[in-house]
Amino acid sequence: MIDIPRPTAVLEAAARLQGIANHTPIHTSRTLNAQTGQQIYLKCENFQRVGAFKFRGAYNALSQLSEVHKAAGVVTHSSGNHAQGLALAAQLLGIRATIVMPEDSPAIKQAATAGYGATIVTCPALAREAVCADLIAKHGYTLIHPYDNPHIIAGAGTAALELLQAAGPLDLLLAPIGGGGLLSGTALAAAAVQPNCRVLGVEPASANDAQQSWQTGEIVRLTAVPTTLADGLRTRYVGEHNLPILRQYVTDILTVTEDEIVTALTFLWTRLKLVVEPSSAVALAPLLTGKIAGQGQRVGVILSGGNVDIAEIGALFAA
Amino acid sequence: MIDIPRPTAVLEAAARLQGIANHTPIHTSRTLNAQTGQQIYLKCENFQRVGAFKFRGAYNALSQLSEVHKAAGVVTHSSGNHAQGLALAAQLLGIRATIVMPEDSPAIKQAATAGYGATIVTCPALAREAVCADLIAKHGYTLIHPYDNPHIIAGAGTAALELLQAAGPLDLLLAPIGGGGLLSGTALAAAAVQPNCRVLGVEPASANDAQQSWQTGEIVRLTAVPTTLADGLRTRYVGEHNLPILRQYVTDILTVTEDEIVTALTFLWTRLKLVVEPSSAVALAPLLTGKIAGQGQRVGVILSGGNVDIAEIGALFAA
Repeated sequence: MIDIPRPTAVLEAAARLQGIANHTPIHTSRTLNAQTGQQIYLKCENFQRVGAFKFRGAYNALSQLSEVHKAAGVVTHSSGNHAQGLALAAQLLGIRATIVMPEDSPAIKQAATAGYGATIVTCPALAREAVCADLIAKHGYTLIHPYDNPHIIAGAGTAALELLQAAGPLDLLLAPIGGGGLLSGTALAAAAVQPNCRVLGVEPASANDAQQSWQTGEIVRLTAVPTTLADGLRTRYVGEHNLPILRQYVTDILTVTEDEIVTALTFLWTRLKLVVEPSSAVALAPLLTGKIAGQGQRVGVILSGGNVDIAEIGALFAA
Repeated sequence: MIDIPRPTAVLEAAARLQGIANHTPIHTSRTLNAQTGQQIYLKCENFQRVGAFKFRGAYNALSQLSEVHKAAGVVTHSSGNHAQGLALAAQLLGIRATIVMPEDSPAIKQAATAGYGATIVTCPALAREAVCADLIAKHGYTLIHPYDNPHIIAGAGTAALELLQAAGPLDLLLAPIGGGGLLSGTALAAAAVQPNCRVLGVEPASANDAQQSWQTGEIVRLTAVPTTLADGLRTRYVGEHNLPILRQYVTDILTVTEDEIVTALTFLWTRLKLVVEPSSAVALAPLLTGKIAGQGQRVGVILSGGNVDIAEIGALFAA
């Protein structure tokens, strides 16, 4: 039996994050509105602590652990934003965190995570779940899954909650989907405070497992890590906690091509002056490429984060 | 006799720009404060219309032209942010603008300026003042100088005014200096509303004409265009309207090395997720490199703009 968070769990998470997570700014652009024919509100989680929305869920999850579990410590496997989000949240709460990272993950990401005081354990990429399980058996750590966890979901939803509360009624809310933590949290936030707001997920066409899962009601697992510029969305399947929420609260899941991701990324960097990840561009892409029906709507977009290799993005622009 | 604007001219400019220029956001960073020991408020003019503070002065200047001068049109020479700022302001006010650009200026900058409806006239780089003079003689255009103009100065000062009004009392305010439009406007803004706030200018060591001019009281002219990453600060001399203001209201002018500029630029892009120009990094650099005496001060920094070639900046990070 899966424990699905209620919409009000997002409100409770927001109370826990008060004064801890950044109330990130909401950006608007005359040019973007003119080009899309919509009125767009960008929730800038690239300005969140550790540079991504992931800090929200991590702190929400850790702050609800029992004292016994806090004392024992936590573990996760991630080479991305969840690693840094969990490391900082653990540091703030005085909890020992161990992060299992693939041994070929960039040294700079390992260093950034270690910089927040976490212990890094490296292992072959395919062994990371086994290594996690081993650490749990040996030390009694609590696993904090990157997305398949009700507190991670509720915490992630606080970004959309802030947007809905600050920007007023929205017709539509878009978020990228990888494992489903951000999108399911976003959908719960809308259900809590603006149930008429339609919530759309967006994923790269090459990683359309979430779209298939949402359509069929069964978790579809990709057999290989998908190839997409949006490195944050290379997850192969959505979580067991996430799919029921997506099915109940999400209006549709769209896909975008790699070219469309680059178009949106270029707009965000060159016109809006935002350092954002390709995953963030995924959520904006359907608006720039005319995939959203209707005009003059008030549309919220969650820009998920800004942790990128500037040289890599620069090389994209040189092409 | 030079007509020097009074500090209150900045307040008048702010009233003209109300609802026209963006009230740009002010960003803060726990990491930046921890690293510098100061409490820093970054005024993000990279989020201004056309991507730079220059729109403020251009609109303030054009909106005060007589109907006769508006009907005749305006001209300037610039291959940078002033060109775009003037072009947009002219478009909004229904004024014909002609921008003289060096024939070797990037096609993308010419296109961006033409995109705001301005007429582009290209010529050899050294001929641009003569070409301007010729157009003025022939068509009766009004020259809107990029910085040596009291209305441009007062308009530029509105960025600092917004910062001082929103962030509360500041001990210190830093702005980059090229020709002196932004720094003299910033100093007037402080004089108008917080005369106890010290105002510092910062320029690249290779382009230290403003420092020399400020120290000697005479406009020092560099004989060649200085070599610096901060392309917005490659002006060879400050303006006749600017120097008296700098002498009266600015506390000091500091210089920073190219390495220090890159350090600050890296921090702004990778930690603060802001697409800003190297000129903006110049103003932050003295804080990151310990050149500012004292600790725990409330410090404002004007980030002047964000119009950069992303590929060029990316290549810097690849090094």
